Amino acid sequence: MHCNIVTVPDMVQLDITGPFEVLARTPGWTVDLVAATMDPVRTDRGLRLLPSATRETAKPCDIIVVPGGTGIDAAMLDPAWIAFVQHQAATAKYVFGVCTGSLLLGAAGLLRGRRAGGHWQARDLLTQFGATVSNDRMTRDGNLYTAGGVTSGIDMALRVVGDLAGDEVAMKIQLAMEYDPEPPFKGGTPYTSPEPVVQAVLADTKKRRLKREEQVALAAARMREAN
Amino acid sequence: MHCNIVTVPDMVQLDITGPFEVLARTPGWTVDLVAATMDPVRTDRGLRLLPSATRETAKPCDIIVVPGGTGIDAAMLDPAWIAFVQHQAATAKYVFGVCTGSLLLGAAGLLRGRRAGGHWQARDLLTQFGATVSNDRMTRDGNLYTAGGVTSGIDMALRVVGDLAGDEVAMKIQLAMEYDPEPPFKGGTPYTSPEPVVQAVLADTKKRRLKREEQVALAAARMREAN
Repeated sequence: MHCNIVTVPDMVQLDITGPFEVLARTPGWTVDLVAATMDPVRTDRGLRLLPSATRETAKPCDIIVVPGGTGIDAAMLDPAWIAFVQHQAATAKYVFGVCTGSLLLGAAGLLRGRRAGGHWQARDLLTQFGATVSNDRMTRDGNLYTAGGVTSGIDMALRVVGDLAGDEVAMKIQLAMEYDPEPPFKGGTPYTSPEPVVQAVLADTKKRRLKREEQVALAAARMREAN
Repeated sequence: MHCNIVTVPDMVQLDITGPFEVLARTPGWTVDLVAATMDPVRTDRGLRLLPSATRETAKPCDIIVVPGGTGIDAAMLDPAWIAFVQHQAATAKYVFGVCTGSLLLGAAGLLRGRRAGGHWQARDLLTQFGATVSNDRMTRDGNLYTAGGVTSGIDMALRVVGDLAGDEVAMKIQLAMEYDPEPPFKGGTPYTSPEPVVQAVLADTKKRRLKREEQVALAAARMREAN
């Protein structure tokens, strides 16, 4: 199995690195970070990752992975990334979206008539790409795997490996990564976090949400025009 | 708060990137990856990270973070890394070990008489550095925070932020990262994973364990000599 992970500037690095850790530990699987160029890619909080392939040199893959973050909102409107995702998905066996990565999958027309999820602050927007929205942490619809926000990419990568390489392989990786989580606080979803925390996060990200709504509307219009 | 994360080749990248995601999201906090040089650092499964400081250019920090992986086993025997960790810890307010990062903390003499944990396959070795071993996922002893293997660094980083910046800040980060985990399989510790899975992981890593035992014995002897 070869996995290509879409890597653009200003992504959430844990959207990339969480699934990478699981996928790259799977015996016989290979993982490339695919970027526009081979230059280091700066993620949203400053961590810089080195790509291992460009859109031009990327191998065909079995699993195309699209993580999220502000940068992916921008990539939705970049014809080169839309074309790359469409081209890769045409031959990939599986499609794996993490967080707001599902927005780019939607913009590429890959979510029409499909059930898909994403970060809790953005997944409602997937309807504009013709998807049925799932509020689950992990959503599988045929060969399409979509995870909720950021850390859910780790859970979903374990499920992907379980489905495609066998549960025992995934369980070995889970143990090697000592993944029996104990978050120190109850919360982590809008349903489980205290209401003041939910309201504070919504207030902090209001401006970004408005911008994202504009970007999605434009990407969805372009998607409809193209078809 | 400024955090310096020790970054050497052949570490487990999620040991670094998990805590980074949490620490770097904390308002007003800054995080550097400190390496021997400014060249890209290859982690154990091939992902390459760009450092943001060297041992020579690193700022004094409030929190010195030491993640784990094979590379840290080697760093235990590197006088330059031992000296760096000792020098940084002398003025840091907090020390944060993740996974086998606690081995380097031990080799630097920072665990004597302290309660500390680490990856489930290595933490018993901490006694050689004078520590009392904890099998907990998260262990705090005064200003010393040590996490279990790999993913426990995420849980512990949330606790560190909660303790030092306030629980509400940590809970907002937890929600923004949608961290209400649902591992698809029961397991993730030697106590919760099925016994055949535990035995398989132990068998796969037997050779590495033997090498680590040698490295720890040598590092512990050097530590005792130095004091």
